[in-house]
Amino acid sequence: MILKMDRLPVELPTPTNPSANDAAAVQELLGGKFGEMSTLMNYTYQSFNFRGRKKLRPFYDLICSIAGEEYGHIEVVSYTINLLLTGVSKRGIDPTIAPLADGVNARNTYHFNNSGQTALPMDSMGKFWSGDNVFSSGNLKLDLLHNFFLECGARAGKMRTYEMVSDPTARTMVGYLLVRGGLHVVAYAKALELLTGVEVTKLLPIPDLSNDKFPEAKKFMEDKMHLKLYTFSQEDYKQVALIWNGTHPEDGQPLEVIQGAIPGHAVPDLDEEPQLNAPGSDEYAYDPQMFADMAKKMGIKL
Amino acid sequence: MILKMDRLPVELPTPTNPSANDAAAVQELLGGKFGEMSTLMNYTYQSFNFRGRKKLRPFYDLICSIAGEEYGHIEVVSYTINLLLTGVSKRGIDPTIAPLADGVNARNTYHFNNSGQTALPMDSMGKFWSGDNVFSSGNLKLDLLHNFFLECGARAGKMRTYEMVSDPTARTMVGYLLVRGGLHVVAYAKALELLTGVEVTKLLPIPDLSNDKFPEAKKFMEDKMHLKLYTFSQEDYKQVALIWNGTHPEDGQPLEVIQGAIPGHAVPDLDEEPQLNAPGSDEYAYDPQMFADMAKKMGIKL
Amino acid sequence: MILKMDRLPVELPTPTNPSANDAAAVQELLGGKFGEMSTLMNYTYQSFNFRGRKKLRPFYDLICSIAGEEYGHIEVVSYTINLLLTGVSKRGIDPTIAPLADGVNARNTYHFNNSGQTALPMDSMGKFWSGDNVFSSGNLKLDLLHNFFLECGARAGKMRTYEMVSDPTARTMVGYLLVRGGLHVVAYAKALELLTGVEVTKLLPIPDLSNDKFPEAKKFMEDKMHLKLYTFSQEDYKQVALIWNGTHPEDGQPLEVIQGAIPGHAVPDLDEEPQLNAPGSDEYAYDPQMFADMAKKMGIKL
Amino acid sequence: MILKMDRLPVELPTPTNPSANDAAAVQELLGGKFGEMSTLMNYTYQSFNFRGRKKLRPFYDLICSIAGEEYGHIEVVSYTINLLLTGVSKRGIDPTIAPLADGVNARNTYHFNNSGQTALPMDSMGKFWSGDNVFSSGNLKLDLLHNFFLECGARAGKMRTYEMVSDPTARTMVGYLLVRGGLHVVAYAKALELLTGVEVTKLLPIPDLSNDKFPEAKKFMEDKMHLKLYTFSQEDYKQVALIWNGTHPEDGQPLEVIQGAIPGHAVPDLDEEPQLNAPGSDEYAYDPQMFADMAKKMGIKL
Amino acid sequence: MILKMDRLPVELPTPTNPSANDAAAVQELLGGKFGEMSTLMNYTYQSFNFRGRKKLRPFYDLICSIAGEEYGHIEVVSYTINLLLTGVSKRGIDPTIAPLADGVNARNTYHFNNSGQTALPMDSMGKFWSGDNVFSSGNLKLDLLHNFFLECGARAGKMRTYEMVSDPTARTMVGYLLVRGGLHVVAYAKALELLTGVEVTKLLPIPDLSNDKFPEAKKFMEDKMHLKLYTFSQEDYKQVALIWNGTHPEDGQPLEVIQGAIPGHAVPDLDEEPQLNAPGSDEYAYDPQMFADMAKKMGIKL
Amino acid sequence: MILKMDRLPVELPTPTNPSANDAAAVQELLGGKFGEMSTLMNYTYQSFNFRGRKKLRPFYDLICSIAGEEYGHIEVVSYTINLLLTGVSKRGIDPTIAPLADGVNARNTYHFNNSGQTALPMDSMGKFWSGDNVFSSGNLKLDLLHNFFLECGARAGKMRTYEMVSDPTARTMVGYLLVRGGLHVVAYAKALELLTGVEVTKLLPIPDLSNDKFPEAKKFMEDKMHLKLYTFSQEDYKQVALIWNGTHPEDGQPLEVIQGAIPGHAVPDLDEEPQLNAPGSDEYAYDPQMFADMAKKMGIKL
Repeated sequence: MILKMDRLPVELPTPTNPSANDAAAVQELLGGKFGEMSTLMNYTYQSFNFRGRKKLRPFYDLICSIAGEEYGHIEVVSYTINLLLTGVSKRGIDPTIAPLADGVNARNTYHFNNSGQTALPMDSMGKFWSGDNVFSSGNLKLDLLHNFFLECGARAGKMRTYEMVSDPTARTMVGYLLVRGGLHVVAYAKALELLTGVEVTKLLPIPDLSNDKFPEAKKFMEDKMHLKLYTFSQEDYKQVALIWNGTHPEDGQPLEVIQGAIPGHAVPDLDEEPQLNAPGSDEYAYDPQMFADMAKKMGIKL
Repeated sequence: MILKMDRLPVELPTPTNPSANDAAAVQELLGGKFGEMSTLMNYTYQSFNFRGRKKLRPFYDLICSIAGEEYGHIEVVSYTINLLLTGVSKRGIDPTIAPLADGVNARNTYHFNNSGQTALPMDSMGKFWSGDNVFSSGNLKLDLLHNFFLECGARAGKMRTYEMVSDPTARTMVGYLLVRGGLHVVAYAKALELLTGVEVTKLLPIPDLSNDKFPEAKKFMEDKMHLKLYTFSQEDYKQVALIWNGTHPEDGQPLEVIQGAIPGHAVPDLDEEPQLNAPGSDEYAYDPQMFADMAKKMGIKL
Repeated sequence: MILKMDRLPVELPTPTNPSANDAAAVQELLGGKFGEMSTLMNYTYQSFNFRGRKKLRPFYDLICSIAGEEYGHIEVVSYTINLLLTGVSKRGIDPTIAPLADGVNARNTYHFNNSGQTALPMDSMGKFWSGDNVFSSGNLKLDLLHNFFLECGARAGKMRTYEMVSDPTARTMVGYLLVRGGLHVVAYAKALELLTGVEVTKLLPIPDLSNDKFPEAKKFMEDKMHLKLYTFSQEDYKQVALIWNGTHPEDGQPLEVIQGAIPGHAVPDLDEEPQLNAPGSDEYAYDPQMFADMAKKMGIKL
Repeated sequence: MILKMDRLPVELPTPTNPSANDAAAVQELLGGKFGEMSTLMNYTYQSFNFRGRKKLRPFYDLICSIAGEEYGHIEVVSYTINLLLTGVSKRGIDPTIAPLADGVNARNTYHFNNSGQTALPMDSMGKFWSGDNVFSSGNLKLDLLHNFFLECGARAGKMRTYEMVSDPTARTMVGYLLVRGGLHVVAYAKALELLTGVEVTKLLPIPDLSNDKFPEAKKFMEDKMHLKLYTFSQEDYKQVALIWNGTHPEDGQPLEVIQGAIPGHAVPDLDEEPQLNAPGSDEYAYDPQMFADMAKKMGIKL
Repeated sequence: MILKMDRLPVELPTPTNPSANDAAAVQELLGGKFGEMSTLMNYTYQSFNFRGRKKLRPFYDLICSIAGEEYGHIEVVSYTINLLLTGVSKRGIDPTIAPLADGVNARNTYHFNNSGQTALPMDSMGKFWSGDNVFSSGNLKLDLLHNFFLECGARAGKMRTYEMVSDPTARTMVGYLLVRGGLHVVAYAKALELLTGVEVTKLLPIPDLSNDKFPEAKKFMEDKMHLKLYTFSQEDYKQVALIWNGTHPEDGQPLEVIQGAIPGHAVPDLDEEPQLNAPGSDEYAYDPQMFADMAKKMGIKL
Repeated sequence: MILKMDRLPVELPTPTNPSANDAAAVQELLGGKFGEMSTLMNYTYQSFNFRGRKKLRPFYDLICSIAGEEYGHIEVVSYTINLLLTGVSKRGIDPTIAPLADGVNARNTYHFNNSGQTALPMDSMGKFWSGDNVFSSGNLKLDLLHNFFLECGARAGKMRTYEMVSDPTARTMVGYLLVRGGLHVVAYAKALELLTGVEVTKLLPIPDLSNDKFPEAKKFMEDKMHLKLYTFSQEDYKQVALIWNGTHPEDGQPLEVIQGAIPGHAVPDLDEEPQLNAPGSDEYAYDPQMFADMAKKMGIKL
């Protein structure tokens, strides 16, 4: 089970220049084969499917902890897409002015036809994410090797999205994910090292360019976000510390396990898009005053 | 962001008769079009994509709360599948005796070829779950209508799986989900009632058979699990109480909102399946004694 | 079985500005998840699969009648696409001038590569329609709820396509479909009302904007096209009148059942596109004079 | 547009031995790449997309006529599946006896999970039919060659299904389709002969076994069903007679065009399956007496 | 088994104007339903699956020979795509200048996200090639008819790509493939003639435009490349000469079988794209001098 | 370009017990995500797409050599499937005896419906292979890491198929592929070692069980087939020897590069299956005597 928090792990600036095609490109990081849906679901299913976890608890705890973080990653990519799409069409309820006319030439029409100018679990070509992307063989060494490769492939995707989209919302998000995904690369490498004695961390960086070449990533590294593994659990997964310890292979700084979640930031409130009836009528049947009265009586702050 | 708990919402008995084909059938409730991956991802994306949430906060909080619960549902279905698959082949590391021979006639060979006799996000025909199953139009009334229909369709699927598989692990799980999914049906119906004034709850039950015809479901109703909406958040989503209140449309008992998660039960520990190298070698390179020493030093309980 | 008529239900104007990207956007209404292929095939299969129809004949007749109409809808959307694509490349048989050069930047290259600048059963992203879009549970209440939701979802899609494409051919077609699809929304709502006693029609409109905000739709409503349910059968499906009667929930005008089909209009004759060899050579082997003689002898009017 | 008739082109006997796996095999003829959905949709889209039809009207009329017939073919295959699935599980509304237990070992679980023991547009492996199966290049010679190949491929599929399933319902249906599909093979061959002067009909039969080796097919040939091309239209498509004339290439009997549809037979009434809630409750809210009164007043025969 | 040669069958000029959208269009000839992956894999699997080959060896040898050639065709289309994509983004290793910015508006973002500005087995809409495109019924006449149709369909695709893309690299490649694919059309037609006695070659050309209307194709015909069938084997498939003999149906020139492969040309060396880390670091760990020494000692020419 | 040889790399015994379900299981090794189609196509496309090959020629030559071998692997898996399917239905041309009746209960009906009891590029669930399985990022280190992981995943699949199917044809094939695939694992590991200095070969074996536990594999190792890397080219790819040298990491024996292909064995001749019309009529139109005369005149041995 999970507990949700209405918070994002990183503070996203408002786009300087909302763009449907930028949003379409960013979708690769959400629903692409190497996007955050894939990392989330791979580790989630591997955690459900872990056999013999008593014997290998630290590895189970590692996979669970990272699975927990990935949920926040689908969230932050989705919000980036949503912010990039907010305001890209003409606002208003008169359909005759063709408020969505620019959508006809946008690369991803699902953002206009099917969603309310918001994210869907699909990639940069509008192909929907598939459960076929989940690898869960049950063999720990093979699953860890997969995860190590997956994170490296995901890193390549992030680097390339950064090179495609220069909007600050997108770059802040990508910089953040490069650092946190970079931590996951190191974590799986260290797990493989423990299992096998091979110095897997020395293969890094894959691809060959270092995170510190990305200014937004560098900023998060200055905050030591490449060093802190969060358990994303209040009570569980403590044994991850048996794997995540020592120093970082790239800069030699000490690694740290933190119980719980990243403090995070308030989630953006997305503006209405009336031309899409999103969220819809100003005259829904319920009575706001009734809500206020009820809330007061129940002691709920509106 | 989320916090994970190493707990299941319901206690699953051990199967009396593990069966690969039973497990294959139960996959429909995980990765089918109306399975728990669909309910989880629909509400998750609708929550990320909700526009104008200040104005309509109670509805946002409702969708978030239910999204939080659905994570536990993919978990409990996955564990049911995993338990049904544990022990269905011959255990041992000698490949020459064809330990997986029965897998040749099993309906779902991915359970043997690709996973370690464990769940994957696919349906009862081995078709992988697709992001195409997510509906998120941005129009609140339409999204709620979708969710109401989705939950009714999911309910039909649960009823039919119950009628296919008589193993107690599966039936306990289905009984539980019928009750909790039934609560979600009512919740979305009530949300639509608030928006429109139409008595949507009077359409129930859909399909026409009541939950109390399922003994395992009835038991959970006796525990009032059809009345308690959990926020699955420690701090957030309190305004769901502005929707979830009054009495249950079927038995007239009072509805209740509970902040946080269902207390739950320990997750089952899945036995090793050596013939699948799951989890693998008894001679991995790390030193258990070193782990024990480190754990002691770090104050971690093994 | 069916009888075909070489007629369209609505008269389509010639596009003022043929456009490959407009055509690509309109494909959503043909092969999208909520497009006309989906409504046609859902009701068609539900009609084949209807169990216990003696007891519930009026509902069977309703589904059959609407299924009959939907065929004309895939036709009218296809012709809209075909008209929008006619003339968008350079005409002639010399390939060296790159007559299809603009196709390289068009959103949907299948219109040039695979079809002869004509429609295919795919959506606005070029994803092909799938039988997976058919819902046919066998439970009447659930199937009707599905159909009600499907029509509302389809309505949202039509509204958004209208807002994307301002060409008069497209808008005439969408205006027409909004009215006829709107009738189907009401029809399924009334069927649910009969089954359950709940005033489902009061949920309308979904999404929240009324059809009369679309001038082309309004015109068809002035012709009372939102009131007349056609059986699309010469002899059968008469009992639909037990459901479709009374007054329209939005304007209170009397509802009417008409046996048979909409009178309709001649289908457009699509110009040749020689650069696509569509339809091909002027020197096919048969002898037109021979055809004329045969036709004369057979009493066929050419 | 179309007019529907509540009739099947052929009379289907009741299965002697209903069988879920037989039904699953027959699905290939409905939703397989070479199934009736493919023939129906290929000719339907080719008819919408036909360019230059004034010049080539007889070919247009041929494609339209055959498209009209194919609708009856998806119908007759669907009813075969539905009859084969009727009664294959235990009837009753008590879920605890696991009435669908046999479904766990059935090859196609969608028949139990998703449909009410009825057909869906999928193939014998449960893969859903896709619009990708439609070929419509716009070049008449190429499209006719495609159709000729498609019908030969479909013929192979029918022959093999006949060899797999010996139930009389299935064999009657396949025998019928072999004859009518065989007519379509000849029709497209004759069209190609007219265009090119090449004796395409001499390629037949493809595959090499003749229809008269199938007793059920032979019976329909004795009724001259391999000779009569129906226009499946009351008024249109008369010029097909300029192609469909002369004698049959295999037995030299005279070919005939018939305006309109095959007379056909009443459609089977499918029994209820209460364990699937199909069609559902005996206590729906409407009042049968009210229906009877209304019908009487409206002059509708119940 | 195969032996590879580091050579292309045709010399490709360097593009005058590299273009991501041209490359995206050319993908149809690689991974489209009628692209070279389809011809390669159809004949490859038909050769593996050929039953009774002793009796029908010449036909087996024909299919094998053409299968051999098709490998070179996926190669030449891939290199065309790769050359068209080389240099379309800004070169350099600084990600902050958004070197891939133009990729955001490119039709196929996989060329930037997933590949290193190079080909993938997908079509012009980015849909991946599927094994579903392979037809292998086992009936020789039907398989040959399929192949004849497939090659005609492929020919239509090539003609249309030629009309879309005027770059000389693409047109040289298409001209070449029109001629060689044209030879395959004739070859399968001749095989059908032998089996049936019907003059299938007289159906040509399909579509109706002749290859000599394409200047680049005409040039290859002047080199008699439409006459020479290569076995693409040093020793095997000699009996193809029992089918490929006589004269060409279009120009009456003598046909010829050549044992072995087309002499071919050196493959282009693709420039590095540092912004994609393709191929990556200049400081990989191995020692070039060590390689040189080893090569010298082993007698390998670097 | 390639040259084909009508030879298999390994001699396959005739199955002792042909079995449709065994064949269906073996399909995973052909068209599964980790099957031979995937290895073949990954390395094939990586070779076409290799940028900067002058600088990194040994790595290019390695990928090309292994790509060459993989073609023989799709061949040997296909023949295994074909042999397992030969004779599984009743032979004869009378369809009325339902010769394919057992196919109704077979796991993969495509083997009967669509192919002539032969292989198709699909996996053990009948899902067709997709080009989406090709990874070709352009970054050499990442592509090699992918290939290393892919071969380890493929190895797991082979081990599990071995454990499912005990037929000697299948086990001989799997034993062979374990050894040759095992060589590829080592080859990619060594390539990564050269690039990075990390002892990647020490991660082996993945999964944890050694090849020598499989008797059929052990036999091929005794023939030193785990040591010999073939270039699968007569002239090219010599620089692979700069990577493939030294000793084997598991048994310390010397590694060897061999120019050219494995000598191999004659391909099996597959029996006719008349009930499938495969290959078809005994009375095709051509004259065998004419063939014999022509062959004699041309000097071709029949």
